[in-house]
Amino acid sequence: MRTTVLAAALALLVAAPLHAAQPTRIPDAALKQAATLRDAVLKDDTAWKVTESLTTEVGPRPGGSEADARAVEWAKAKFKALGYDKVWTEPVTFPKWVRHSESVQVLGAHAQPLRVAALGGSVGGTVEGEVVRFPDLAALEAAPDGSLAGKIVFVDYHMQARRDGSDYGNSGRVRWGGPSLAIHKGAVGFLMRSAGTDTSRAPHTGGTRYEDGLKPIPAAALSTIDAEQLARLVALGPIRVKLALDCGWDGEYTSQNVIGEITGSKRPQEVVLIGGHLDSWDYGTGAIDDAAGVAITMAAGALIKPLKPARSIRVVAFANEEQGLWGGRAYADKHAGDVANHVMSVESDFGAGHIYGFDSSARDLQPAALAQIQQVLAPLGIEWMPGKGEPESDIGPLTQRGMAWAWLGHDGTHYFDLHHNAEDTLDKIDPKDLAQNTAAYAVFTWLAAQAEGGFGSAPKAAE
Amino acid sequence: MRTTVLAAALALLVAAPLHAAQPTRIPDAALKQAATLRDAVLKDDTAWKVTESLTTEVGPRPGGSEADARAVEWAKAKFKALGYDKVWTEPVTFPKWVRHSESVQVLGAHAQPLRVAALGGSVGGTVEGEVVRFPDLAALEAAPDGSLAGKIVFVDYHMQARRDGSDYGNSGRVRWGGPSLAIHKGAVGFLMRSAGTDTSRAPHTGGTRYEDGLKPIPAAALSTIDAEQLARLVALGPIRVKLALDCGWDGEYTSQNVIGEITGSKRPQEVVLIGGHLDSWDYGTGAIDDAAGVAITMAAGALIKPLKPARSIRVVAFANEEQGLWGGRAYADKHAGDVANHVMSVESDFGAGHIYGFDSSARDLQPAALAQIQQVLAPLGIEWMPGKGEPESDIGPLTQRGMAWAWLGHDGTHYFDLHHNAEDTLDKIDPKDLAQNTAAYAVFTWLAAQAEGGFGSAPKAAE
Repeated sequence: MRTTVLAAALALLVAAPLHAAQPTRIPDAALKQAATLRDAVLKDDTAWKVTESLTTEVGPRPGGSEADARAVEWAKAKFKALGYDKVWTEPVTFPKWVRHSESVQVLGAHAQPLRVAALGGSVGGTVEGEVVRFPDLAALEAAPDGSLAGKIVFVDYHMQARRDGSDYGNSGRVRWGGPSLAIHKGAVGFLMRSAGTDTSRAPHTGGTRYEDGLKPIPAAALSTIDAEQLARLVALGPIRVKLALDCGWDGEYTSQNVIGEITGSKRPQEVVLIGGHLDSWDYGTGAIDDAAGVAITMAAGALIKPLKPARSIRVVAFANEEQGLWGGRAYADKHAGDVANHVMSVESDFGAGHIYGFDSSARDLQPAALAQIQQVLAPLGIEWMPGKGEPESDIGPLTQRGMAWAWLGHDGTHYFDLHHNAEDTLDKIDPKDLAQNTAAYAVFTWLAAQAEGGFGSAPKAAE
Repeated sequence: MRTTVLAAALALLVAAPLHAAQPTRIPDAALKQAATLRDAVLKDDTAWKVTESLTTEVGPRPGGSEADARAVEWAKAKFKALGYDKVWTEPVTFPKWVRHSESVQVLGAHAQPLRVAALGGSVGGTVEGEVVRFPDLAALEAAPDGSLAGKIVFVDYHMQARRDGSDYGNSGRVRWGGPSLAIHKGAVGFLMRSAGTDTSRAPHTGGTRYEDGLKPIPAAALSTIDAEQLARLVALGPIRVKLALDCGWDGEYTSQNVIGEITGSKRPQEVVLIGGHLDSWDYGTGAIDDAAGVAITMAAGALIKPLKPARSIRVVAFANEEQGLWGGRAYADKHAGDVANHVMSVESDFGAGHIYGFDSSARDLQPAALAQIQQVLAPLGIEWMPGKGEPESDIGPLTQRGMAWAWLGHDGTHYFDLHHNAEDTLDKIDPKDLAQNTAAYAVFTWLAAQAEGGFGSAPKAAE
């Protein structure tokens, strides 16, 4: 398999466009050091300890909560303890959404409670109505406008587990677009089967939004098991439920992106940007989402430091990703004028599963340098998968302004068992996978810092 | 293996005490019919449909709740729909315990909520204190009386998964005896790691009690994951928590044992008693505990009916087992004078795992008849395990007064993943295992009904 991949990479090299920049090359000495680094990191438990520390000492840390401030202090202290040369914060201001309570009660002859999570951004309120079930969003779309007056919509889309998590596109659309669609049809409340691949009673929260000009309705997700229960109940005959959410927007809050930097030994003004997001949803302790990403990248930087990287390694623990990518957008706004110096970027925000794939925005521009990197990643079981990757969450806004990015793809087969629910806890992380993740990030970050030449970062207008 | 088991059974036969009653024998025709019945039931889905019906239409049904009354009506209707010849109820009166809310909040620098279940029978109340962790009950016992004044005890015993569920003895002791022990030591609150073998955020409830004369303290169980979190927090340094339970005893309630009978064609006054308990705890829908037991035995009786059993088959859906074996005790009190006519009994109250073992109180008295029965059970993968079984829950009180019993042992390796928590739902049952369970109960019940001679039921004073 790897031979084929390498052949494909070499073919790409041959096919590189003639207008490509000066070819970037990784010095042999850096490649040798990368191999040594990789093997050492596989035996290192720094990332595990950092993950354990954040999830235990801070616990759940939704943007704007009391724990948000503690997480910021934790991150500053942890960067310092790990020996980062510079540690600073950059403010991130956002509207704060809070959850107080939530319930769904089946009424009538089959009275029983169902387990439900208010969607982030939902309005509060108590509504009662007959449940109308739709197997997916298309079925709801097909209902005539106004036809669901007084009803509670239930979109029962069953998300499928995939390695690349790609069915989140479909179930995420239900969460983002479902409530507004239900309002158009006349509904008074919105329920969905959780965007999750588990079978448990733990409902999955996550952000939603309402189209401008619509009067919002309470919107919530049932656990997958409770969705199956409601589907069985609906099949018995008309079922009324009472949906009661106490939640909503509550003023503004200023949190911080927390940044640690290992200062480059030769080109300190040029940075390789890595990171994860510091906030989490409120049910779990945010272990896979995204203490792991923070820990993988904090550990990678710390473990690279003794090698004295040529470029600076900048690790960002982004604020409030969950409620609207606030930290990533604030970072992009602040550093928009410095895109060219952000030579490369990679974020870990897809859990702590084994990393299996590698891709980069520089795939056409600098295939030779990527092929060199790939050779050091290959013993970790990581394939070159051109065209399969994309920049993860918080680095997205600055990549839209021209920053080069890479993708180190975690196996997400079980990611959506835990995503945004109470089961996202430390015990779900395999320390060996976490060490492999950290080795991949350390190797890639080190090689990007040592590369002679860049990967195409250049300012452009935001998309 | 089975050859060995048969040899052991035959050895027992030879060794049968000389004072044994007239040997009981199963007619050849009945054995043939049993094999046919067994194979037919394996393909039948009655038990599945009954389990689905109870868990969906009634849902959670704690003793004394609004759903308790609906469960009674459900059981009466289901017996009738399944063609039972007689259906009646017998009142069961008990004190009612109710749960309103429960929480544990870690205070101070590591503030976070932990997931907890009030133990059934706990008093309500709000207490704050420093947590003192004990790895097991023996360590708590070793603390001097009064030494934990003002503290909150945390017993962190890790229950082990076993096929026969035998470690429930150890973790159950923590639940039953831990609160009183903590009171003796001066504690103001009691926390335990759930008596469960899962790793999930779903805490396991279950009954507790306080020794007479003690002033009760709030008592609750953390989910296994939350217990691990608290253990990590305690290891960081002194940790204070606030434990707030709103629960307690609330008057008296009269529920019903619901009884369906297939009238015997030859000896109708003699009964083979089978059943499960109708109530459940409040978090799940009581699928494995004990809709399955009700369904297995309801289905077994219904599937035997066309064969016109010689003895009556009496199926009891017992009231309120969970809060103190109220239904089983009421049945024993009411039928204490009729022990001899309860020729044999077997209850299903250990989930819906594959049945692997068979035993009976008649093992020494009527080994030949049991060996005959075992031959029909053997193709289901059921071993003769003399001395390994015991009567399950609700039939216990009447067996103490002399009723003969059998044990059809479910594989309980995963039973305590779900026991008394929110995850006890329909999806956890394997329809094939449920059919195997039903086949075993049907075969055994049929053969006990056809046996020429009894199994030793004879009145004695209650133990």
